[in-house]
Amino acid sequence: MTYNFVAQDEQFEEKVRKSFARQRAMETLGITLEKIEPGRIELRMPYNEAYTQQHGFLHAGIVSTALDSACGYAAFSLMPKEAAVLSIEYKINLLAPAKGDSFIFTGRVLKTGKTVSVCLSEAYSENSGERKLVAQMTGTMMTVIGREGVDQ
Amino acid sequence: MTYNFVAQDEQFEEKVRKSFARQRAMETLGITLEKIEPGRIELRMPYNEAYTQQHGFLHAGIVSTALDSACGYAAFSLMPKEAAVLSIEYKINLLAPAKGDSFIFTGRVLKTGKTVSVCLSEAYSENSGERKLVAQMTGTMMTVIGREGVDQ
Amino acid sequence: MTYNFVAQDEQFEEKVRKSFARQRAMETLGITLEKIEPGRIELRMPYNEAYTQQHGFLHAGIVSTALDSACGYAAFSLMPKEAAVLSIEYKINLLAPAKGDSFIFTGRVLKTGKTVSVCLSEAYSENSGERKLVAQMTGTMMTVIGREGVDQ
Amino acid sequence: MTYNFVAQDEQFEEKVRKSFARQRAMETLGITLEKIEPGRIELRMPYNEAYTQQHGFLHAGIVSTALDSACGYAAFSLMPKEAAVLSIEYKINLLAPAKGDSFIFTGRVLKTGKTVSVCLSEAYSENSGERKLVAQMTGTMMTVIGREGVDQ
Repeated sequence: MTYNFVAQDEQFEEKVRKSFARQRAMETLGITLEKIEPGRIELRMPYNEAYTQQHGFLHAGIVSTALDSACGYAAFSLMPKEAAVLSIEYKINLLAPAKGDSFIFTGRVLKTGKTVSVCLSEAYSENSGERKLVAQMTGTMMTVIGREGVDQ
Repeated sequence: MTYNFVAQDEQFEEKVRKSFARQRAMETLGITLEKIEPGRIELRMPYNEAYTQQHGFLHAGIVSTALDSACGYAAFSLMPKEAAVLSIEYKINLLAPAKGDSFIFTGRVLKTGKTVSVCLSEAYSENSGERKLVAQMTGTMMTVIGREGVDQ
Repeated sequence: MTYNFVAQDEQFEEKVRKSFARQRAMETLGITLEKIEPGRIELRMPYNEAYTQQHGFLHAGIVSTALDSACGYAAFSLMPKEAAVLSIEYKINLLAPAKGDSFIFTGRVLKTGKTVSVCLSEAYSENSGERKLVAQMTGTMMTVIGREGVDQ
Repeated sequence: MTYNFVAQDEQFEEKVRKSFARQRAMETLGITLEKIEPGRIELRMPYNEAYTQQHGFLHAGIVSTALDSACGYAAFSLMPKEAAVLSIEYKINLLAPAKGDSFIFTGRVLKTGKTVSVCLSEAYSENSGERKLVAQMTGTMMTVIGREGVDQ
């Protein structure tokens, strides 16, 4: 099934870029925003030994960090102008060791609602141009409007 | 319910410390190993602005990183001497904004099996000594023996 | 950690009983409401061969059905008088085969919020009085007010 | 991404049919096996008031029951001849009320491994021929060989 969403906020791309730029974790981890479409996000991160687990693979939690942001911004791109986004929960399956030159993270909205959006995201490793699926996430995101301390 | 587990490997504490020390992500993020008991782990991380999301809270993925390691090492502490541990999957609920001076992460084994172990872990924020539950994780961990590239 | 919740609605017990009685699935499956406290529910179901999987264990989905209701009503017990409850998502780990004379399902609220509540529930088998943990669930429940077709 | 799997066991279709026929819960709930391909399963269930929750929608746990079987048999279709399948865990997001004349459940393998397989499944309602996505599941399934009491 393919889902084509229309953004409520015409400035969705700018809104996503601004909020992403405020996620200090993205900058620190070297995660960059590659594509923004209504309900779809693509991120990239080069392999970084500083964030590995005991076997030298990228730590599952770091993969989660990128996938959670991919999910969150996919949902955020479809939210009304004044809304902020918060993660309610997510679930990740680690499918293969996260080893590679770099990693691609894609997030897409499965269902968008007034309060709750559900997104799927996938992590791929890239080795000399070859892509391999390494993790899959399902996340539930909340539309937050007018809560103190939670802006865009 | 309280579960009291007995470690198969008498050197479980040393084994956990060695493997944890090899997780470069822990050192980079400033996550330290506070307690090791059979089937139970406690980690700590000071607040670090470099790993925040857009509202200045610790990024949910960074919370996941610590909780995944807490789960993994709780399971690993009960595994046979020659085993390595890998995360199969985990699920996290974000219960409150991860803001605070520092964070405590506790992991404990719910069920241990020959191949698969299930663990629960919880993240607490600390503000001037007051603890607050900010996230809860359930994780499934795999006992891996004799797989190339996957040692302790 | 022990959580003691206070119900907003003094009639919470009656409200839960009425709504539970309207879940036709509970009656059909023979699931009964054993205990109601603010934020805590206990259900029971006798073993029934009609709901087994291929090895004669209670089907994981039937275990889910009881655990989802236990989660939902634990959350519902703490909701305002006029609210209805809907499941957003849940995650279950199957820890041991669901075989036994009967099954006990306990649900308790971990965190209650204005819109979203998070609950934990556990399934136990009973064999000649001996209890064994067979499954664990984390569920996210939504407080719904004023939505057409979604009453108590 | 499209995944095309090849079954190890040429008799996979017969194997799945036989095991499915032994799931008493499927017969009791009126769930039927519509399609079997390597790594893909489709099930169907007519609406049945006996299995509803308090608003007259199909109970989320019943939706889970069908999705869990769809996941399990999708994984089982790719397993070796002598293997049995058990669910380790699954996670379901309820996306829309499960109301309709009947329901379609599709399961497909995302990743198959020696011990662990990961599957995605989706539930659709059908109303006068119109399909709507009502739930999405991710499940982890285990290949079990030579365990007493756990055959096909």
